Amino acid sequence: MQFKEIVENLKQGQSGVVDFKIQNNPVILTAASLEKAEKNEISFLDNNSPINMRNLIKTSKASALLLPANDTYIVEIAKKISVDWIILKEPKIAFAETLDFLYPSEIKSEGIHQSAIIGENVKIGVGVSIGANTYIGDNTEIGDETFIHPGVVVYKNVSIGAKNLIHANSVIHSGSKIENECVINANAVIGGEGFGFVPTSNGWKKMPQVGIVILRNKVEVGSGSTIDRPSVGETIIGEDTKIDNLVQIGHGVSTGKGCAMAAQVGIAGGAQIGDSVILAGQVGIGNKVKIGDRVIASSKTGIVSDIETGKVVSGFPAIPNKLWLRCSANFKKLPEIAKTIRKLDRKNSR
Amino acid sequence: MQFKEIVENLKQGQSGVVDFKIQNNPVILTAASLEKAEKNEISFLDNNSPINMRNLIKTSKASALLLPANDTYIVEIAKKISVDWIILKEPKIAFAETLDFLYPSEIKSEGIHQSAIIGENVKIGVGVSIGANTYIGDNTEIGDETFIHPGVVVYKNVSIGAKNLIHANSVIHSGSKIENECVINANAVIGGEGFGFVPTSNGWKKMPQVGIVILRNKVEVGSGSTIDRPSVGETIIGEDTKIDNLVQIGHGVSTGKGCAMAAQVGIAGGAQIGDSVILAGQVGIGNKVKIGDRVIASSKTGIVSDIETGKVVSGFPAIPNKLWLRCSANFKKLPEIAKTIRKLDRKNSR
Amino acid sequence: MQFKEIVENLKQGQSGVVDFKIQNNPVILTAASLEKAEKNEISFLDNNSPINMRNLIKTSKASALLLPANDTYIVEIAKKISVDWIILKEPKIAFAETLDFLYPSEIKSEGIHQSAIIGENVKIGVGVSIGANTYIGDNTEIGDETFIHPGVVVYKNVSIGAKNLIHANSVIHSGSKIENECVINANAVIGGEGFGFVPTSNGWKKMPQVGIVILRNKVEVGSGSTIDRPSVGETIIGEDTKIDNLVQIGHGVSTGKGCAMAAQVGIAGGAQIGDSVILAGQVGIGNKVKIGDRVIASSKTGIVSDIETGKVVSGFPAIPNKLWLRCSANFKKLPEIAKTIRKLDRKNSR
Repeated sequence: MQFKEIVENLKQGQSGVVDFKIQNNPVILTAASLEKAEKNEISFLDNNSPINMRNLIKTSKASALLLPANDTYIVEIAKKISVDWIILKEPKIAFAETLDFLYPSEIKSEGIHQSAIIGENVKIGVGVSIGANTYIGDNTEIGDETFIHPGVVVYKNVSIGAKNLIHANSVIHSGSKIENECVINANAVIGGEGFGFVPTSNGWKKMPQVGIVILRNKVEVGSGSTIDRPSVGETIIGEDTKIDNLVQIGHGVSTGKGCAMAAQVGIAGGAQIGDSVILAGQVGIGNKVKIGDRVIASSKTGIVSDIETGKVVSGFPAIPNKLWLRCSANFKKLPEIAKTIRKLDRKNSR
Repeated sequence: MQFKEIVENLKQGQSGVVDFKIQNNPVILTAASLEKAEKNEISFLDNNSPINMRNLIKTSKASALLLPANDTYIVEIAKKISVDWIILKEPKIAFAETLDFLYPSEIKSEGIHQSAIIGENVKIGVGVSIGANTYIGDNTEIGDETFIHPGVVVYKNVSIGAKNLIHANSVIHSGSKIENECVINANAVIGGEGFGFVPTSNGWKKMPQVGIVILRNKVEVGSGSTIDRPSVGETIIGEDTKIDNLVQIGHGVSTGKGCAMAAQVGIAGGAQIGDSVILAGQVGIGNKVKIGDRVIASSKTGIVSDIETGKVVSGFPAIPNKLWLRCSANFKKLPEIAKTIRKLDRKNSR
Repeated sequence: MQFKEIVENLKQGQSGVVDFKIQNNPVILTAASLEKAEKNEISFLDNNSPINMRNLIKTSKASALLLPANDTYIVEIAKKISVDWIILKEPKIAFAETLDFLYPSEIKSEGIHQSAIIGENVKIGVGVSIGANTYIGDNTEIGDETFIHPGVVVYKNVSIGAKNLIHANSVIHSGSKIENECVINANAVIGGEGFGFVPTSNGWKKMPQVGIVILRNKVEVGSGSTIDRPSVGETIIGEDTKIDNLVQIGHGVSTGKGCAMAAQVGIAGGAQIGDSVILAGQVGIGNKVKIGDRVIASSKTGIVSDIETGKVVSGFPAIPNKLWLRCSANFKKLPEIAKTIRKLDRKNSR
């Protein structure tokens, strides 16, 4: 693809083209990071990059660059370098869109593999792919253009909408509802039974888990992640919520729209998460905790009580992020602090 | 099912019926939480619920309620409301039993699916189900009424007892012994090789892992959880121990009876866990640590040395829970503490 | 196997035989720990074992012992006990080698199972095993003597070298390169798409993930672990690096040679890990962090900024291990510290 075509394509996108220079109009074969890019490759510099990244644009071997409009230092350099460039409001979005142009999605129907096993009374839409050795249980529905890779197991009575992408060896339990345009990555488990046991004098009494899991439109679930169904009612993942790998979502959790949960997050049963909440890696959220909209929790945060809308929290138990940073800075001075106190106490006791 | 039938059934159970009112004798179709219950649904209030939950019984649309006998406030309200109710010693157990009545377990033998692949010299009991594309290795035994879902891989020389429920795409390695009435959830891995490597001048030397994993009766293993076999000897999960999703149990661990381990717990090699131990989410236990009976560790606790019977611990490294709560309360005052010390120290130095 | 044979075999190995006593020359049937060993079993005592372990050699029922040369106390006892023994520089390596003798690896080709599904243009080497219901995508290469267990899904365009061992139900995505002598354990996912989403006014814009994952020679990946591919470029796991269960490796991570990562470690996107780095259980490493060679992080450490070569770190945020130990010791005195300060402050204010 010629650089000129990328410029034209980006003008139609969401990245806000501000200016561009088409001088060499190189052929762009692929994309790479600034450090690794070679001739005929395009790269980008994100808004607010650190200085060592910004200086890389002087030495990068990329044949074309996507650059931030809000960075006057970079805009000045751009005028002097010989490679072609585009200056944009959102260079990272431009990079994502450019990858879409260079690598158009290859999802085209492969039909139903002859080794797939389809139960009774299954409704299959138009353009559906079902991979080798995949099992589809009775009374399940699969919407148009959904693509299911090999080795997937879908239990009975599952509702899967249109344009979903379900990767190999994932498992979807009975009663689950997957709306449209979701991605379920390999070895994820949707709708396994919630962990509910009541202590009795004869050991654990199992709480039956007869609820279901619902994934709204555009939800993505990472490899190996698990989303449990509740004893009654629903576990709901809101529209456009993105879940990374090895995340655990307990029974009866609900999340709002547009959340992002990084790898190894764990959310205990009944927690209620608002819209646009961001949870960094290894965060834990306790039973029935309520998290307001737009809350951000930094990595390894442990949240055991409700958090108000818009707060940024850290630590365990979670406290405001700025306070936590100051507390952590003092934590590493604790031996010194303790020493000073002993000294003062001794003097004082004399 | 009529409410009256539920009363009669609960009288036979473990929940301790103290009193009941059959006035409308509604048909009960399903169960729900107090907030979400509608007409023809039954709900419950647990012992020691918070006040906002307790007040819900005044407004709940449920047609019948299971209520705690030890709560005089609730018992008084019960006398005034128009819905039918049962007052019990253990309303949560009653709710679990009621779900059992409303949703009788559907596990009936489906036989051996024609696509299942059964190795040589496999002994299969009466009423066993083996799902589509499941693989059973040579010399394996499967006891009566065990139900194996599609896509499961059982290696050679595995012993599986009676009435086990093994979910889709889980993997059971050679030599494992699963006793009776266990549940292995989807994508769990039983008996993978322990993580044992010895440093040498030529890199890592692998410690062969020729031991086995044993799951005693009534063990449950969550989706995506992994239980490793040791180099020699056994990894043992004690009777009635319940393990949630994405839990890691290292090589040579042993647990006692009736433990519960919440999601994302990690137990390192050789740890010895007593009976009735409760580990909350994301707890970590170090190599060869010994944990006494009835120990409780709150979420994210890191245990690196032995814990005595009956202790409740928190934090990392683990300390008594009550002490940890006080320490954590002071942690967030550290900036203030440090400031006061600087002030005192300055004054003192004058 | 007779004890004498074990002595002869160990002389050829890496464990450094210093002395031995062949008196009874027992038949050795298997190996066990000192506590559990019985007649006709061999056991070992590691260098620098705690005293309670060392005293076990007086009472162990093992018929033969592998003992540490650097332990004069043990060497003295050895002279007095009746069992046969070998004294070595590295008894743990000797134990691993002895297990290799007693349990020679059973990996012999089983050929391609008739239920395996092989795509178009797949190149399969000599002595390859492909298990039941395994799926191999188009244009994939599989080198000599690689053993793939049942239920594995290999996408298109994957390169798998020689002598790899790939366990049941694992998934390898398109473009991945597995070199030689790697082990991929059950339900692991290699090359799933990285977690990359850019916020826009219309919700999350997905960053296409068109990079690949490379596993160098002798890499091992634990059960249920996930290694993501990046948007551009490679995620690389260096030679002889060993990864335990349920570990998450983000997009674009690179690790050096000979690292070891214990269970539930999480490494965020773009982190660069040096050679011989050791990460204990549940460690987290942040985005783009650089970790020098031979760094050791103790369990649950959270690393959010670069760590220099050779450092031993702990805590969150990570600080030098020795400092962290002192800080943690003071953390549990915080209530007392706070009390003393209040007292001093009161006196001071008078």
